[in-house]
Amino acid sequence: MISLRLYLSIEPETRIGSGKVRLLEEVGASGSISAAARTLGMTYRRAWELIHHMNEAFGQPVITGTTGSLGGAELTDLGREIITRYRDIEQQVLKAAGPHLAALSARIVAPARSNDE
Amino acid sequence: MISLRLYLSIEPETRIGSGKVRLLEEVGASGSISAAARTLGMTYRRAWELIHHMNEAFGQPVITGTTGSLGGAELTDLGREIITRYRDIEQQVLKAAGPHLAALSARIVAPARSNDE
Repeated sequence: MISLRLYLSIEPETRIGSGKVRLLEEVGASGSISAAARTLGMTYRRAWELIHHMNEAFGQPVITGTTGSLGGAELTDLGREIITRYRDIEQQVLKAAGPHLAALSARIVAPARSNDE
Repeated sequence: MISLRLYLSIEPETRIGSGKVRLLEEVGASGSISAAARTLGMTYRRAWELIHHMNEAFGQPVITGTTGSLGGAELTDLGREIITRYRDIEQQVLKAAGPHLAALSARIVAPARSNDE
């Protein structure tokens, strides 16, 4: 089974893929970094780091209200824009790539099972 | 500056992105793994490993004529199909993502230069 993965690459070394976008979505839904982290099974520290990387890459925050507080986090316009644009790219990409992925997946030859198994 | 990266993910753990596709293209053009490796600035061993990973992932070869020989490599139909489909996906993706990437790139705030510099 072949699937397509995509991410935004921001120089010099930030990648925004489905993981960070999902985190933004969860923060937007819950209004809390710690709640979002819990939902996604990551530590608060890890979630904060991912958000920090995005803030640094854009030179402006993707989330507000986080300084010195565990709650009250809110997406900025930029944070919302990243989600919307990423998801739109993703949807168009999947539509365009669908037939190609199906055709390539069909080329995979399943390994022969040994008689011992 | 934001760009989009994409790769095909084949379970359990093979990724085919622009690097492997470029390698296939160079083997196709030169008819030789070692010439392709040289062009791409990688060792023969590394090029061979990347090809081996693709062969394993599909359960069939992407290149023929390589056993015990440094020259005479040729793409199989599968090898050619991977190139064609990947490049077509890429082209459609870039078209679809272009406006989004331009808009997000415009959101990057350049870091302020210190007066000392």
